[in-house]
Amino acid sequence: MTNKIFPCVIGLGYVGLPVFVRLKKKYKTVGFDTSLSRTTFLKKKKDLNNEINPKDLHLFNGSKITSNPENIKECNIYIITVPTPLKNKHIPDLKCLEQAYQSISKFLKKNDIIVVESTVYPGASKELAKKVLEKKTKLKSGKDFYLAYSPERINPGDKNHQIQNTEKILAIETNNVYVKNKILKIYKSITSKLKISNSIEEAETAKVIENIQRDLNIALMNDIFIFCKRMNLNFKNILELAGTKWNFLKFSAGLVGGHCLPVDPYYLSYIAKKNNISLETVLAGRSVNHKLKNFIFKQIRNKILDFNRKNKKKCRVLISGITYKKNVADIRNSYALEIYLNLKKNFKNIYALDKYCDKLNRKKFNILDKIKLNYDLLIFLVDHNYNKKLYKSAHLKKIELFDPFGYYQ
Amino acid sequence: MTNKIFPCVIGLGYVGLPVFVRLKKKYKTVGFDTSLSRTTFLKKKKDLNNEINPKDLHLFNGSKITSNPENIKECNIYIITVPTPLKNKHIPDLKCLEQAYQSISKFLKKNDIIVVESTVYPGASKELAKKVLEKKTKLKSGKDFYLAYSPERINPGDKNHQIQNTEKILAIETNNVYVKNKILKIYKSITSKLKISNSIEEAETAKVIENIQRDLNIALMNDIFIFCKRMNLNFKNILELAGTKWNFLKFSAGLVGGHCLPVDPYYLSYIAKKNNISLETVLAGRSVNHKLKNFIFKQIRNKILDFNRKNKKKCRVLISGITYKKNVADIRNSYALEIYLNLKKNFKNIYALDKYCDKLNRKKFNILDKIKLNYDLLIFLVDHNYNKKLYKSAHLKKIELFDPFGYYQ
Repeated sequence: MTNKIFPCVIGLGYVGLPVFVRLKKKYKTVGFDTSLSRTTFLKKKKDLNNEINPKDLHLFNGSKITSNPENIKECNIYIITVPTPLKNKHIPDLKCLEQAYQSISKFLKKNDIIVVESTVYPGASKELAKKVLEKKTKLKSGKDFYLAYSPERINPGDKNHQIQNTEKILAIETNNVYVKNKILKIYKSITSKLKISNSIEEAETAKVIENIQRDLNIALMNDIFIFCKRMNLNFKNILELAGTKWNFLKFSAGLVGGHCLPVDPYYLSYIAKKNNISLETVLAGRSVNHKLKNFIFKQIRNKILDFNRKNKKKCRVLISGITYKKNVADIRNSYALEIYLNLKKNFKNIYALDKYCDKLNRKKFNILDKIKLNYDLLIFLVDHNYNKKLYKSAHLKKIELFDPFGYYQ
Repeated sequence: MTNKIFPCVIGLGYVGLPVFVRLKKKYKTVGFDTSLSRTTFLKKKKDLNNEINPKDLHLFNGSKITSNPENIKECNIYIITVPTPLKNKHIPDLKCLEQAYQSISKFLKKNDIIVVESTVYPGASKELAKKVLEKKTKLKSGKDFYLAYSPERINPGDKNHQIQNTEKILAIETNNVYVKNKILKIYKSITSKLKISNSIEEAETAKVIENIQRDLNIALMNDIFIFCKRMNLNFKNILELAGTKWNFLKFSAGLVGGHCLPVDPYYLSYIAKKNNISLETVLAGRSVNHKLKNFIFKQIRNKILDFNRKNKKKCRVLISGITYKKNVADIRNSYALEIYLNLKKNFKNIYALDKYCDKLNRKKFNILDKIKLNYDLLIFLVDHNYNKKLYKSAHLKKIELFDPFGYYQ
């Protein structure tokens, strides 16, 4: 067995890029992404996600960024960090993971190691490895090649929890000490603290329940938020009162978006349903978070209709903040974006501002990065830093403001 | 308006007794409870709930404990701490609160103050005060007498969060400074830290959502617990892995009982339903926590049937721990008790041990306080301190053990 460590990272998005950046400090590493646009920008040291500094994208020691799968040919460690979104009807979409396995299968050699970081339901990494890798290569997992699982804990926009200082689960099932140490060695170069598990399924489950717990806690707040609005009770006051209890958890109401929270609950419920197990709390959380989007949409619609009726003119609306959460460029599953697009379908004079959103998406969705304050209604669905100032200016100009979650009141 | 402060506490259970103990240190106070058995024990300085020390039940300065409503006649501050449980179909049972108002209505004088501490749904304290007090006395709330609300935060068995050192919400709606100061003065003698609110409804809501949040978080763990059992995954390992994420909340699976968690969600959902508002997460939490009870019951039943079949004799079963949680005497809504009683209906040789449960209930439900270890199956549903030793002894004797939540493994 070779001592050589030649890793590649498959998928250079929010998850893969930081892994690649960490690995290439120590090893000759290949960063592979199927998107030519993504790798072209990255080669120019530009991360449009705005998470990685240009200086960290400097390549040396033969490391490369590529969209050509031939470049992973000589690698012997494949780290898969591809998206695992949903298809219609909330079904897990494992297409990218399958594609990654397919690419690897072309070059898989004896004793190669594959580590999956993508979020999946318990059992999926192995299931698909069997289906794709073993079938194509006639090599056996756990004997000829080795599968490990290390769920990502990337939190876009969070500078305190960077990959190098955030504890990471690493599930290794083989008893082959040599292989085990090799995987450990690689992952120790990625992060300072590892939590070792001997079960891939347990690690897969742990990952999804972390996000499910957060999704559900926000959902409860959203449930109470809607209740308060309908009952004419002050939600913010109530949270402040409850917050004086020693064990009250300070979640708040808000639109839940991004690649994890709106997705992972359905991964778990998918496999649960397949096994005739119900997960009531998990699905209730999703249902409520979805409902909040419609609730907010209707509130805005009514405000616009009110304005139009009272003023006998079309309300000029600006939504400030379109990405999925505070101070990030990420628009994946952004409910603010959905609300914006839905309003555009129903009304004229609907505009959006987001200084964090990247160029490509700003162009795609017609999102402004600066404005003049000539609007009739300003809406704040995401708590971007710059919104505070904007809120104040608009308030001084007596523009109508809608800040449903009370970010600036 | 008189300066005199002569309080009474109506209801001397888990909530009222500590309030009475605090007040009587400073004021001549009447402690009233409709249960003659309760007041008789308390007069003998015996709190069967095992929460208050005998020395704290010493009476002086004219304070008294009584079951005679005539004794509250001269009081001018009524603090209501009566139970607010559920009727059939999860409907709030406000009978005791209504009775307390009825008793007060007989003696209510101008400028009297009523503070409700019982948990209710938003609007209930006022609604019922209108219905009972105003109607009977012709006095007007907020003008002739004053209603305040201060939700209890008593946590049975918790020595760290005693009434005197635990922040307490106090909702006062009157602008009458004199009355306001009087209420404040009284409550400052009860606890060191007050959170003042100017809305009774907001304080009522805050109280129920505190417990709902806890109920739901345990429910999520119970949902995952059942999922893991059915999928043959190790729940405890998974929690340990997830627990390494910086923001994972360390709840665990378990039977949820007591007077608050299994009750309060239905108070909120009751008023929500009345207003055509759905509270999906809240009800999903209840549903799952209820489901867990049946899940555990079935696991035990199968174990007994297995034993009987294999050994051709009736399994002798001991359930150790019957109260609603660790190290408390409280059996209200205890699922362990329900499971025990349900097993007794279905099998012979079912025994229970609980050293914390009070004498009266031990007698009522035939619960032992000491045992000889001659059982075939030992079951641990509640994590009482003494269970650890018992588990070890039984393990040495090779008695079959069932510890579904992994308290002692």
